[in-house]
Amino acid sequence: MRSETIYLDHNATTPVAPEVYEAMVPYLTREFFNPSSMYSEAQRPAHAMTKARSQVASLLGDIGADQIVFTGCATESNNHAVFGCMRANPKRRHVVTSAVEHPSVLEVCRAAEREGCEVTYLPVNGQGMLDIRDFVRSLRPDTLLVTLMHANNETGVLFPIEELSRITKETDPNIVFHTDATQTMGKLPIDLLGAYAHVDLLSFSGHKMYAPKGVGVLYIKRGTRIRPFLVGGHQENGRRAGTENVAGIVALGKACELAQAISAEDAARIHRLRDRLENSLEESIPCLQINGKQAPRMGNTTNLSCHYIEGEAILYQLSEQGICASSGSACTSGSLDPSHVLKAMQIPFTALHGSIRFSLGRYTTAEQIERVIAVFPGIVARLRRLSPYWNQETNAPKE
Amino acid sequence: MRSETIYLDHNATTPVAPEVYEAMVPYLTREFFNPSSMYSEAQRPAHAMTKARSQVASLLGDIGADQIVFTGCATESNNHAVFGCMRANPKRRHVVTSAVEHPSVLEVCRAAEREGCEVTYLPVNGQGMLDIRDFVRSLRPDTLLVTLMHANNETGVLFPIEELSRITKETDPNIVFHTDATQTMGKLPIDLLGAYAHVDLLSFSGHKMYAPKGVGVLYIKRGTRIRPFLVGGHQENGRRAGTENVAGIVALGKACELAQAISAEDAARIHRLRDRLENSLEESIPCLQINGKQAPRMGNTTNLSCHYIEGEAILYQLSEQGICASSGSACTSGSLDPSHVLKAMQIPFTALHGSIRFSLGRYTTAEQIERVIAVFPGIVARLRRLSPYWNQETNAPKE
Repeated sequence: MRSETIYLDHNATTPVAPEVYEAMVPYLTREFFNPSSMYSEAQRPAHAMTKARSQVASLLGDIGADQIVFTGCATESNNHAVFGCMRANPKRRHVVTSAVEHPSVLEVCRAAEREGCEVTYLPVNGQGMLDIRDFVRSLRPDTLLVTLMHANNETGVLFPIEELSRITKETDPNIVFHTDATQTMGKLPIDLLGAYAHVDLLSFSGHKMYAPKGVGVLYIKRGTRIRPFLVGGHQENGRRAGTENVAGIVALGKACELAQAISAEDAARIHRLRDRLENSLEESIPCLQINGKQAPRMGNTTNLSCHYIEGEAILYQLSEQGICASSGSACTSGSLDPSHVLKAMQIPFTALHGSIRFSLGRYTTAEQIERVIAVFPGIVARLRRLSPYWNQETNAPKE
Repeated sequence: MRSETIYLDHNATTPVAPEVYEAMVPYLTREFFNPSSMYSEAQRPAHAMTKARSQVASLLGDIGADQIVFTGCATESNNHAVFGCMRANPKRRHVVTSAVEHPSVLEVCRAAEREGCEVTYLPVNGQGMLDIRDFVRSLRPDTLLVTLMHANNETGVLFPIEELSRITKETDPNIVFHTDATQTMGKLPIDLLGAYAHVDLLSFSGHKMYAPKGVGVLYIKRGTRIRPFLVGGHQENGRRAGTENVAGIVALGKACELAQAISAEDAARIHRLRDRLENSLEESIPCLQINGKQAPRMGNTTNLSCHYIEGEAILYQLSEQGICASSGSACTSGSLDPSHVLKAMQIPFTALHGSIRFSLGRYTTAEQIERVIAVFPGIVARLRRLSPYWNQETNAPKE
């Protein structure tokens, strides 16, 4: 019997907050004007974009709003960051990133290699953490850009961006420091005039923070050497061409305002629910591994490896129960390769294919979590009964 | 006294059709799931995208829908077309375009020049038309790409894309032929299996055809040598990374369905209204020039030059009367340079700064056109009274 949908895949995308939806509706209906037009009607969408820019700037620590560039998605922001720096400074040809970045950074780095750049892919340890000494050693006189994510989308593991960006700038102030903050924006405080002051470029998207799909941001600190990525008209002060997605931009601004109002309290509540989920499942399921558990990580994410069974099978069973989760990132699903993040963490083969991500959000309730706690151990037990590696008698792997 | 708004700037952006808005609402609310996710809920947005892709493919002449790539805007599609061909075929370094293209093609061509490409910018005559012999002569053994717009956004003048693409392929089937059809899609029939079969790449955006801003298309004919522009995840079959703007895509699909149902009849009605407007203004205003009038052009657009006065001043007076028009393209407004399109057409200096574009659309009524006919000549007369070049006595320019 199918109960209500329990949505625990907020790292893939979030629902649109009702307040955000309400804010965008006028710009999908009567206020459809092109904000670049000269007549008075077009001033209303233009002003709405100005307000949205301020709302985003405010959430980033009351920075100057002229540094906010609206894009189509975080993938575009990440492409812009890397390619834009490459085009602006062709003399420096070395990029530092990590092995666990989102595909929109990793694939861009591979494209950069095809264009003659050299890329250092920093490894991570078994908890998904960087070695700071490795990082320091990776910086070179010809390093153009460091691009490291804030929180990993699959595990929630946090990189110490404050420290990494400070080290970068102390080593060479001409190295551009970029972070993909898609998984943290609106969840963790990011103060670009405070602890994050050494960050030059920061990406995120609307649809991971209760705004719709189709809008993102690239923060470009004043003075950063970067060229536009989408070229054409003079929109976004010449930094991103293309008629602005006004409704999406208004939505993203409202989402930032909401996050600023409620995220601290909400994050604590979500963190407690996540811990309750993890602790209960650890107690009731043998051979369960929580990936990145010893690392600093997001309070909304848990990445579980159930040894000896397939993540896809678990997902299917969960879906039958109305529970939405993920076996990795949605951006790499559809491929049968195991997660590049877990591979980089050297998760053992028996666990690599059996990982499940639950990512909680604003509308997750204690009842929903209790339902998962009630259902999940049974799913794992049933699937292990079918596994040739599992001993039913001892409820443990075969010797 | 301000009456209702009369919107005559459809080449800048269109209202969202109510049917289109209704179609997208579910994907901004309950159907927010990431279409790449595995659970059954995510199948609904995934199926909605499949349907939208078919609707677009149908409007383009019942082509295979796998050739439709959804993007963030026509500017992205144009960047993708040019840069994607350059990256796929670095041996050919020559691009042919025209002097009157949209900035999202012209600026991309200038960027291509910085990367070592050579670009031929074909001139146009006083009516905005290409000389086919010029075009034929421009093609070279190292020509990579021809990119020519279907209809000009400022004047509505049409380039003979059927003929130009056929000549291109007869000259060298390895030259890629791209057209920016942003101003014609949904207005003129474009049959990619018929008259337009030699077109390899075709761009357009949703917000010029009654869908919202933030979504576009690049048609990529099977077999075309082109690389992705936005790289990262595997979305759009590996051709455009980034979480899909599902609501925008559904909207664009619906807009294509609507266009297919009503555009032929609607275009004829709009054409009659445009002709009524032009003929009346020509009768009542001395020294009025209709730019591109002798050329094949879109039935919804009129670009008027009122000699000896400033377009900005006319626009302001029209706006006071609730009439929305343009002095050029919205993408280049905010700059004081005269239109690059009219300059290329060698429009005389006295007319260059006094041009106004009216672009009609689906919701334009005969009453609205009569209102413009009633108001516009008075605005021109009042402004000419302030012009040092105008003789009040003779109602003609001073000798």
